[in-house]
Amino acid sequence: MKIIKGSVTAPQDFLAAGVKSGIKKNGLDLALIISKIPALAAGVFTKNAIKAAPMVISERHLKNGKAQAIIVNSGNANCLTGKKGLDDAVEMAKAVAGAMWISSYNVLVASTGIIGKPFPIDKIKAAVPDLISQLSEAGELPAAKAIMTTDLSPKRIAVAVDIGGQTVKIGGIAKGSGMISPNMATMLCFLTTDADIELRALRSSLRDSVADSFNAITVDGDMSTNDTVFILANCLAGNSRIEYGTKGYKIFCEALSYVTAYLAKEIARDGEGATKFIEVEVKGARSKNDAGKVAREIANSNLVKTAMAGEDPNIGRIASAAGAAGVKFKESKLDISISGVKIVNSGNVAYQKRPKVKKLLKKGEIGISVDLHSGKESAKVWTCDLTERYIKINARYN
Amino acid sequence: MKIIKGSVTAPQDFLAAGVKSGIKKNGLDLALIISKIPALAAGVFTKNAIKAAPMVISERHLKNGKAQAIIVNSGNANCLTGKKGLDDAVEMAKAVAGAMWISSYNVLVASTGIIGKPFPIDKIKAAVPDLISQLSEAGELPAAKAIMTTDLSPKRIAVAVDIGGQTVKIGGIAKGSGMISPNMATMLCFLTTDADIELRALRSSLRDSVADSFNAITVDGDMSTNDTVFILANCLAGNSRIEYGTKGYKIFCEALSYVTAYLAKEIARDGEGATKFIEVEVKGARSKNDAGKVAREIANSNLVKTAMAGEDPNIGRIASAAGAAGVKFKESKLDISISGVKIVNSGNVAYQKRPKVKKLLKKGEIGISVDLHSGKESAKVWTCDLTERYIKINARYN
Repeated sequence: MKIIKGSVTAPQDFLAAGVKSGIKKNGLDLALIISKIPALAAGVFTKNAIKAAPMVISERHLKNGKAQAIIVNSGNANCLTGKKGLDDAVEMAKAVAGAMWISSYNVLVASTGIIGKPFPIDKIKAAVPDLISQLSEAGELPAAKAIMTTDLSPKRIAVAVDIGGQTVKIGGIAKGSGMISPNMATMLCFLTTDADIELRALRSSLRDSVADSFNAITVDGDMSTNDTVFILANCLAGNSRIEYGTKGYKIFCEALSYVTAYLAKEIARDGEGATKFIEVEVKGARSKNDAGKVAREIANSNLVKTAMAGEDPNIGRIASAAGAAGVKFKESKLDISISGVKIVNSGNVAYQKRPKVKKLLKKGEIGISVDLHSGKESAKVWTCDLTERYIKINARYN
Repeated sequence: MKIIKGSVTAPQDFLAAGVKSGIKKNGLDLALIISKIPALAAGVFTKNAIKAAPMVISERHLKNGKAQAIIVNSGNANCLTGKKGLDDAVEMAKAVAGAMWISSYNVLVASTGIIGKPFPIDKIKAAVPDLISQLSEAGELPAAKAIMTTDLSPKRIAVAVDIGGQTVKIGGIAKGSGMISPNMATMLCFLTTDADIELRALRSSLRDSVADSFNAITVDGDMSTNDTVFILANCLAGNSRIEYGTKGYKIFCEALSYVTAYLAKEIARDGEGATKFIEVEVKGARSKNDAGKVAREIANSNLVKTAMAGEDPNIGRIASAAGAAGVKFKESKLDISISGVKIVNSGNVAYQKRPKVKKLLKKGEIGISVDLHSGKESAKVWTCDLTERYIKINARYN
């Protein structure tokens, strides 16, 4: 597998575009990704009890396992917008379908931005002709920019992998920059591939890769009202069809997981106001679920996140968060390492190692590793530090 | 019931003191509360998997249901300190017991401060004689100050209530100023009463009053490594003994709940960097547990807390947090009010009411009320807003 240039238009016969429709005061706010031929499609959605209108519509459009276009706006989430919102999401799909001469059931829609504000469907409809005229391979960058909200940079990647002697490509763009979880800022990810793959295999590979990537930056499956991941597979790579469980399937899954993990880490790295990327690993748990619980409790602790921002090896906050996860373990067996230095050994704090760890915390990447020594399961969660800038962004965003 | 002057020394024959032992660089850091005669005693402790040494020792000392003294230090939590920490906690009790000629089993100990730092038992032992010599009724204020960490003000209250023609008094002091939960800054509360009450009734009244007060500022029973509530009842009020389930018991419980709720709200109000006190009420839930889950998800959302700091009625963040709690409800039935103004009605946002709500958010007290319309249960949670000052306090505390 190798990383190649571009993103969603790197696989064969995909085009993209991003334009300014005027929903946001400044910048691009409307994106389109299309396959030149109808593609297989799969999606993963938020588990929030409140689902934005575009998700309800896209879930319906995905039932047949096919799609040819994805239209996405930023600046307004089309959420808590009632029946009018659902109608608007359908209109958004129809606007693309009408201009492209395809069925509106083959158009997926997504939105991100402010919740509970009337949805500006007229601006979107007015911008669709321009959006379609801008479709190109180079359009992937404007598309990646058009889905951004508070993101500081577009998030994009493409990889090429050999499957049975044929080159298969996978590309993706993503947005998300709130601390995601437990704060539920919206995360969007759109993936394309030219792999020839059966629908069942496409669906299962997407589910698995999301579980180990985007869900690693999300608590308990609780996501925002708009979190969405779509994948389109137009099957043009010429490989023999990938079937579930085969060697080719394994190679495809690894490549897809690389893409989603890369994009998930980029989201954590671009956390609002973040100055540090933090990987929390919990080992020696009785179950994967227990390991995940402890890792997320640490990764979501404001006290741990602020200590990391202050570059202080506050082991007490890490231990206290670990203990608060509702998972039983013995304090006398607890090991904690920060950036490779074991600072808690069998429940005893090596206080003299603090200066050494303090130096390592000056780096932009921090690793927190906790070993509960009560089982064999482990989990990883990615997050970032919590700074004054996060508060500024989220308290005074008007 | 009426509010009276003072706190833990308002009930008959209690004394208190607070001195500077040198654990903290500045200020009082060692407190003592005693009853002149042995008292009945009960306690409630953290459910964190990691328990600080003083809690382990105090739990042991509480088994006989009696105590005469409570010694508390701030500046060091005596947590993650291994066997030495347990020995030190015993030494702390013994230092008081020896000077007062009582059994060390009748001394309760508590600590709050930095975790994982060697415990300065020698400083405490050296300060105990001075501490005991300072005991007085007026000592309740220095005691309330000595248990503070990042608190801006001491938290104290006393009430008098008539039980069967006799005046019974209850007093209390508390500390806690982190956002408490899910961030697990330590909460301590020490209560005294001169009520004549049976041990079973004392224990159950304490448990119930904590559930509706301190646990309303805490997530899922997950508390810090040091969270502790103690009550001493010296039975000197002359009332006929309060038995569980009687009318007198009900009156006592109401008074005790008033005291604990007052202190819990004071803690939320004094949240680190807080500028607003926020009460989150969730109604119409299928169970009390569901109501509590939704209320805590809202109260702990950094996005909701920062919006309140910015005085913006960001209804989307409140709705999104409600939906993320893992509790099922119908979006089409959801009502949300902010400070008495219904801004979401059956899932529809009354966008035109935003300016009115924006004005109300300028006040120091904010009410968020959510009605799920799916059952009859409700829950209240108290919290505060999240400001840049919180980050400053918690990132650069060295």
